[in-house]
Amino acid sequence: MATQGVTPRGATPRGVTPRSEDYSRWYTDVVQQAELADYAPVRGCMIIRPYGYELWDSIKIALDRRLKATGHRNAYFPLFIPMSFIEKEAEHVEGFKPELAIVTHGGGSELEEPLVVRPTSETLFGEAYARWIQSYRDLPMLINQWANVVRWEMRPRLFLRTTEFLWQEGHTAHATREEAVEETLKILDIYAEVSEKVCAVPVIKGRKSPQEKFAGADDTYTIESMMGNKWALQGATSHFLGQNFAKAFNIQFLDEKNELQLVWTTSWGMTTRTVGAVVMTHGDDKGLRLPPAIAPIQVVIVPIWKTDEEKVSVFAFADEVKTQLNAAEIRVELDAREGLSPGFRFNDWEMRGVPVRLEIGPRDVAARSVIACRRDVAGKEAKMSMTVEGLAPRILALLDEIQVSMLKCATEFRDAHLCKASNLAELADIVEDGWALIYHCGTRECEDKIKEETKASSRCYPLDKNESWSPKGKVCAVCGKPAFGKAYFARAY
Amino acid sequence: MATQGVTPRGATPRGVTPRSEDYSRWYTDVVQQAELADYAPVRGCMIIRPYGYELWDSIKIALDRRLKATGHRNAYFPLFIPMSFIEKEAEHVEGFKPELAIVTHGGGSELEEPLVVRPTSETLFGEAYARWIQSYRDLPMLINQWANVVRWEMRPRLFLRTTEFLWQEGHTAHATREEAVEETLKILDIYAEVSEKVCAVPVIKGRKSPQEKFAGADDTYTIESMMGNKWALQGATSHFLGQNFAKAFNIQFLDEKNELQLVWTTSWGMTTRTVGAVVMTHGDDKGLRLPPAIAPIQVVIVPIWKTDEEKVSVFAFADEVKTQLNAAEIRVELDAREGLSPGFRFNDWEMRGVPVRLEIGPRDVAARSVIACRRDVAGKEAKMSMTVEGLAPRILALLDEIQVSMLKCATEFRDAHLCKASNLAELADIVEDGWALIYHCGTRECEDKIKEETKASSRCYPLDKNESWSPKGKVCAVCGKPAFGKAYFARAY
Repeated sequence: MATQGVTPRGATPRGVTPRSEDYSRWYTDVVQQAELADYAPVRGCMIIRPYGYELWDSIKIALDRRLKATGHRNAYFPLFIPMSFIEKEAEHVEGFKPELAIVTHGGGSELEEPLVVRPTSETLFGEAYARWIQSYRDLPMLINQWANVVRWEMRPRLFLRTTEFLWQEGHTAHATREEAVEETLKILDIYAEVSEKVCAVPVIKGRKSPQEKFAGADDTYTIESMMGNKWALQGATSHFLGQNFAKAFNIQFLDEKNELQLVWTTSWGMTTRTVGAVVMTHGDDKGLRLPPAIAPIQVVIVPIWKTDEEKVSVFAFADEVKTQLNAAEIRVELDAREGLSPGFRFNDWEMRGVPVRLEIGPRDVAARSVIACRRDVAGKEAKMSMTVEGLAPRILALLDEIQVSMLKCATEFRDAHLCKASNLAELADIVEDGWALIYHCGTRECEDKIKEETKASSRCYPLDKNESWSPKGKVCAVCGKPAFGKAYFARAY
Repeated sequence: MATQGVTPRGATPRGVTPRSEDYSRWYTDVVQQAELADYAPVRGCMIIRPYGYELWDSIKIALDRRLKATGHRNAYFPLFIPMSFIEKEAEHVEGFKPELAIVTHGGGSELEEPLVVRPTSETLFGEAYARWIQSYRDLPMLINQWANVVRWEMRPRLFLRTTEFLWQEGHTAHATREEAVEETLKILDIYAEVSEKVCAVPVIKGRKSPQEKFAGADDTYTIESMMGNKWALQGATSHFLGQNFAKAFNIQFLDEKNELQLVWTTSWGMTTRTVGAVVMTHGDDKGLRLPPAIAPIQVVIVPIWKTDEEKVSVFAFADEVKTQLNAAEIRVELDAREGLSPGFRFNDWEMRGVPVRLEIGPRDVAARSVIACRRDVAGKEAKMSMTVEGLAPRILALLDEIQVSMLKCATEFRDAHLCKASNLAELADIVEDGWALIYHCGTRECEDKIKEETKASSRCYPLDKNESWSPKGKVCAVCGKPAFGKAYFARAY
């Protein structure tokens, strides 16, 4: 990744609203002041600025590599869907109709049939798969696309809920139910890995309740993460669609016995909301904290000088350091701005969440060393002196350490705020400052009641291998009806 | 690039319409049978299939790398533009209004102001730049986005003219006119390099006539290429926008003397139509021919066997070859399909334009060699025997040779069909089978007259350094008015 011209030139860190004062304001302040995104003229839409886009691109590259390694290929399906297509799968249209943007005019005249700006593309893939799939030899069909989608949003928030957002949507067709379920869970594992290993955002993998599943799916699996205010955020979902779309679009194949069968399909997506998850998992009152794996700038060099003579030697040394780190493929930026105090520039890079800052002053030049300062920890342990000889490998090791440490911290924070509840009162108490795990009946009435009384929603039935998951003989902690499973409830984005 | 699962499984090459019989049918046959793209339910839209998308992705990566290396950063601006924005620049709205798709309903109700699905994003960038740019220190601002755009198309053709297409659009702002002009021409050079070096599609760089320039630009520069039927195709354009959008959106900055100035802007784009240019520059009656630099599969290994015993040794050897080529980062595919004759499989890969085919039969196993066959040349010189020891470097050299040779052939073909004309009759004759270069007045009336009588349009005033370009003292070869410059006229897509 080239980083030419990355240095913000006239940037003015103004400081953000403290999280404790107003978490929502803090989030918006950080997103805007770190120049991740900005509001657009159309309400609900946003401009993803270069720094935010580079962050998204790092996540995209990490996910795309994993999808290709598991046999998926990228394609591109159209933006526009005929209204009649959306209506072919009954649950699907019911779920999406309130969120649609509709094109009624094109090329200067009114259209015979209105077009939907895609909210998701199961219907278009369904139509094409019905034509492309003939025999079992054509299966599995594993196609993904990176695209923009539109779902009308009444209460937009930058990255978290926007009328238009970017995502990938995978659509696969399989010969058997087992294969399709396996694919759904394989993708869930990939999402969890990208979230944890790449974004350092810990997840709980689980199944959505019948009410929360995707419109048209038999089962929806999700990764759920805890933000800094203990609210939950759904990170990505993977849907087992059964034969619902196969029936709606007549996607059939001749099996090895030459008999006509319906395929089994899946779909799954991860979106730009992941950027919001990174901000809210790691950010602090100084601004962003970025995991090295996705940071557009991993290391910033801040030269410090007073006299012109010092400036020459400090910049010569800074250039030497930059060259060494560049050669090791570290994404490094030299802050060559003039007329700004060191303190101002430190704050500026802290706001942007750059994982490591290297300070270089005249004394460092003399000692052929640098002061390295970690963004992820506070106080004295953040700073360390490093000699320039063999600096690159030490910085690489430090970046790895930060990556691991950020996931560990976020996981400990999350785990400290997970709690079991055995009745509604306990649940209400827990979700004020964490997530509550209860046996739950899975019914809409009970979910609605909990929502009304506590503002918490059903996040997922966790796929926890270490704990007995079976609801057999158990009853709902809230209403006493037979349990469907163990579910997390939390306030959520 | 992973190539798992790339092998077409049930593929049935049906053969394409010969170019000499119906060039347009030939084109559509190749695009569909090579599985580059397919029609979508909405007229004018297309599905870019995985093989076509991978081709586009290779072009995209090559261009993106060059844009980043010259200091441009990627961002993402919204899909929707308020109608009032489009109307702010007078020429701009006049040019685009007939092609707009309009969203009138969102979230279940009629919108107060209709939204335009972006045909291009000068207006959105203009609005943001006016907010983001304060001082000369913020300049130049060099932002690019990869996005989909919509321009209603009455006579769609796959890749060449589609209602929705993919592209990148760069938008830059500068302190001076000179810098903006320099940027416009720098980008034109990058487009020319990607077209020639990467796609092996030779171009003529030039300036558009006043009528053919972008709606809202002072000057539009273009790269024009000759297709197999001698028609011209506009490959990409780079616009010097003067201060038109700076005025419309009030994009001002404080200069070094602390005086308020308007910025100078540029915009430029390259689209998925480039895939169509690759097809029509290189394709033949057997299908696609792809330059190695962008071929999703550079080398296909086709094992040939009769007995089960032969099969075992042929596949073991093929795997060894594949491993060696993979290690050299050659994009290689092993055709392991059963029940299809070698001839059928040869045709299949020729249709897909794979640059090099390696045939491996029992005799090759015994000799530890392979038969390499080039797609780009015909007859005996296409085939050569290569020993497996040291195969990878020889294949890499062969791929380089093919890349260079394809550009050379296409350039020779193009140059053989460029001809000077000194009057309308000569021009009419030339454009039946090539491009005509004439002194031209640049007026709409004269362009319209030529179009009416010959179907040829003004392609560009070439930026030819080797030839006197000055129109001084020259007159239009068609109408006798003073010449604006030397222009190519041709039938065009």
